[in-house]
Amino acid sequence: MNGAHAVARTLLDSGVEVCFANPGTSELHFVAALDDEPALRAVPCLFEGVATGAADGYGRMTGLPAATLLHLGPGLGNGLANLHNARRAGTPVVNLVGDHATFHKKYDAPLESDVEALARTVSGWVRRCVDPATVGADVAEAVAAATGAPGRVATVLLPADVSWSDGARPAPPVPARPSAALSAKPVATVAAILRTGDPTALLLGGTATREPALSAAGRIAAATGARLLCETFPARLERGAGLPAVERLGYLTEGAMAQLDGVRHLVLVGARVPVSFFGHPTLPSELSPEGCRVHTLATTANDIAAALDEVANTLAVDTPAVLQAAARPPLPTGELTAETAAAVIGVLLPEEAIVVDEANTSGLWLPGATAGAPRHDWLTLTGGAIGQGLPLAAGAALACPDRPVLCLEADGSAMYTVSALWTHAREGFDITTVIFANGSYSILDMESHRLGVPADGSAHRDLLNLTRPGLDFVAIARGMGVPASRVTTAEDFTDRLRRSFAEPGPHLVEAVVPALF
Amino acid sequence: MNGAHAVARTLLDSGVEVCFANPGTSELHFVAALDDEPALRAVPCLFEGVATGAADGYGRMTGLPAATLLHLGPGLGNGLANLHNARRAGTPVVNLVGDHATFHKKYDAPLESDVEALARTVSGWVRRCVDPATVGADVAEAVAAATGAPGRVATVLLPADVSWSDGARPAPPVPARPSAALSAKPVATVAAILRTGDPTALLLGGTATREPALSAAGRIAAATGARLLCETFPARLERGAGLPAVERLGYLTEGAMAQLDGVRHLVLVGARVPVSFFGHPTLPSELSPEGCRVHTLATTANDIAAALDEVANTLAVDTPAVLQAAARPPLPTGELTAETAAAVIGVLLPEEAIVVDEANTSGLWLPGATAGAPRHDWLTLTGGAIGQGLPLAAGAALACPDRPVLCLEADGSAMYTVSALWTHAREGFDITTVIFANGSYSILDMESHRLGVPADGSAHRDLLNLTRPGLDFVAIARGMGVPASRVTTAEDFTDRLRRSFAEPGPHLVEAVVPALF
Repeated sequence: MNGAHAVARTLLDSGVEVCFANPGTSELHFVAALDDEPALRAVPCLFEGVATGAADGYGRMTGLPAATLLHLGPGLGNGLANLHNARRAGTPVVNLVGDHATFHKKYDAPLESDVEALARTVSGWVRRCVDPATVGADVAEAVAAATGAPGRVATVLLPADVSWSDGARPAPPVPARPSAALSAKPVATVAAILRTGDPTALLLGGTATREPALSAAGRIAAATGARLLCETFPARLERGAGLPAVERLGYLTEGAMAQLDGVRHLVLVGARVPVSFFGHPTLPSELSPEGCRVHTLATTANDIAAALDEVANTLAVDTPAVLQAAARPPLPTGELTAETAAAVIGVLLPEEAIVVDEANTSGLWLPGATAGAPRHDWLTLTGGAIGQGLPLAAGAALACPDRPVLCLEADGSAMYTVSALWTHAREGFDITTVIFANGSYSILDMESHRLGVPADGSAHRDLLNLTRPGLDFVAIARGMGVPASRVTTAEDFTDRLRRSFAEPGPHLVEAVVPALF
Repeated sequence: MNGAHAVARTLLDSGVEVCFANPGTSELHFVAALDDEPALRAVPCLFEGVATGAADGYGRMTGLPAATLLHLGPGLGNGLANLHNARRAGTPVVNLVGDHATFHKKYDAPLESDVEALARTVSGWVRRCVDPATVGADVAEAVAAATGAPGRVATVLLPADVSWSDGARPAPPVPARPSAALSAKPVATVAAILRTGDPTALLLGGTATREPALSAAGRIAAATGARLLCETFPARLERGAGLPAVERLGYLTEGAMAQLDGVRHLVLVGARVPVSFFGHPTLPSELSPEGCRVHTLATTANDIAAALDEVANTLAVDTPAVLQAAARPPLPTGELTAETAAAVIGVLLPEEAIVVDEANTSGLWLPGATAGAPRHDWLTLTGGAIGQGLPLAAGAALACPDRPVLCLEADGSAMYTVSALWTHAREGFDITTVIFANGSYSILDMESHRLGVPADGSAHRDLLNLTRPGLDFVAIARGMGVPASRVTTAEDFTDRLRRSFAEPGPHLVEAVVPALF
């Protein structure tokens, strides 16, 4: 058995069932090996950032790593931005990066580069395979390194000759990293704080934004009056009618500080100390108010749900959590704006939808409009590297074929990885993509105002404007096989969204909205 | 004056007149500074790989660095693949990578990553700016580090607060790195070898594929019978009627070895020891034949033209170089194929055209069909990182506004950086893009055969096929503002190409051709 076959078989034996692939010559033996492992589903991507973003979406929804298949340093380079997002999300991902044959590496052929250095910037674990005899074990360890609390990006550098040489065998699965043991002290400390009645907020991150942790947090909040906040960019927030409502910390420093104003104790539950997204000339980087004490109940390395349960048990909580009531906004009519578009989405969001949110400024009204919609998942831009939405939606759709995916995408961000639409069409994914077409990098107009930078100069306008020429997303989507339409009224948006939710497969709606800034 | 203004002014004073930009929040002060420096032309790009590829194209055609403007680690990550190509091309590029404010870096905010590690993989020079008082000098040094023999990628990491803080001043230009001194010995050695009449080939790389080096090499060849070869992927090959003809070393190991068969002395002139593009299970990595002696006349760090002139003078050459005769192939008719498309291009290629060649397998007949066309430049995929063509064309068009640019692009490769078409439209660049639409990653079918890998399995077909659904490049191009048409016959291709060359501005022709493999 050659190395490539051992890799494919080991992946499957270790529970990896999907490979988002953009192969080159060094990966062809692995491609051939896939033929003998039809259970390992290979999904073609036309750009590596699509493959890595899709693996992130898949991992967020299943908790299991997908593999990616990338071609040497430049291929990994193209995938880095969405691996950065996956790293921030704590998503398990196993990258297979094909490399030159071991004997060829010293010749510094054109595609040679320092692929390890690239890999280390996004990976919690990196291994260069050197021998077909051990490549199976390498891959089993990679899957284990990726899986656990928190999930990590594990990168396997796979020289072509290790793939093509015989003498390999599959390796048995390696147990995933166990959660770090939870000590009694933080549980007792947090319980004591909550008993004081001092203004306290739980800041939820990692799996704390998911059931069952969320329910435990909801019971604690109901019993003690503590507030439930979550990180600005949760990897996966379960929300909607019937779940405890969680308030997301705002993106803007000013807003987040207002939310935290008056909090005396901030309890981190899988979240990190809240800091501003960017530094600002006059605003602080740390968001918690003067005098607020910050406590860590659990990190993403712990079993977060268990930690919250222990707190609830310590407090002998018997108050049920306050659950979000079912509610839909009124159906709007007239001009399509970010606000009316959000209301339409709030009206129509299907049960069990997976919402991928890269709407940026056009998404301002979305959380409010969808708060009482049927239960759904909300996936966000964890690492701030735009170009995540369309790929993430692909991975989420593959992970959950029976759930509708709604991909809410800003026009500027969409263009970074727009070829993901082809993968949507190729695989027939049930994804409704809404492009919020405001014709600008509107968030940078907003940030300019916040920074006191003139936003009316010609360079500013030239670099942040997307209307000369305008982007025709209907044409672009159709060019990649995705049915598409453009809407400019709330009524037409309602109609198109309804149709898309009713019909399987991918659809794109270009929602023309005014820029907010 | 704040740091951003000092950076902009220093760039201009140092001769950098163009900035291919994909800014984010940390770069907004620099964007504002551009308003006060209208001579520094800012070109918007919708993806960082477009910005870096355009800078490569600009640098290849002018010898001067363009700046890029990128957003933290993920922005640099997205630009890495084309910086890899620029590094291999020896192109001068100055990357400005905005970063978190110095005081904010320690908070590990979402966009934080090891940007230095990324930068080092592609850069010959990296500097993190720390103080507005010295940022001008940092940038002047970066331009000098980028410029010289050979050109290099220089990366400036520019924290937001260094940009927005006062106390900066522009720095005067720093002299470019001088060429390494040429020692007399290799000149004498090479001259002596050439006098023997032994079968000798000059392998040209770097600036040796350009005038005036090419003319000196041509005189040497004419006088001594030495053959003129050049590297497989020259950064910029000047060729066509009236120039010495140079044979490019083949991409495939088998072909390159056949070309070098019988050569007793291989003289490297700005080229590296020839090696195969990928390692192969049974073929050698080193291409020069058994018993062939390899000599280095000059490296890319030397003044290559001067080295060749010295050899010519030592030999007292008075034979004029054999120059390529003007010749056009017959105009083909009937089915459009890679072969007939090449002939059409050979018939129509305009004087002084800049050809950007990422046609991959569909480009097989291009060198032959255009050998006798009017003088032109041929830019190739130096680092093997596909997704180069459309961006490179943008930079070449900006560098040479009076010259037509012909961008020959494979369908698969085009999709990596397809948003470059928007920049073509935005700037009105005179670029004719031909998409060779063969509906597959055909080169991987070819490589599968060479590697003895089965190419008929379902995974293989699924991952290398681009027809389910097909890509409609006419729709995609129109969606980004580029007029486009699809052709399936040689006659229609001729007609469309003629029209595109006659009409200023960007055009795209989707040339439907059968896959070769």
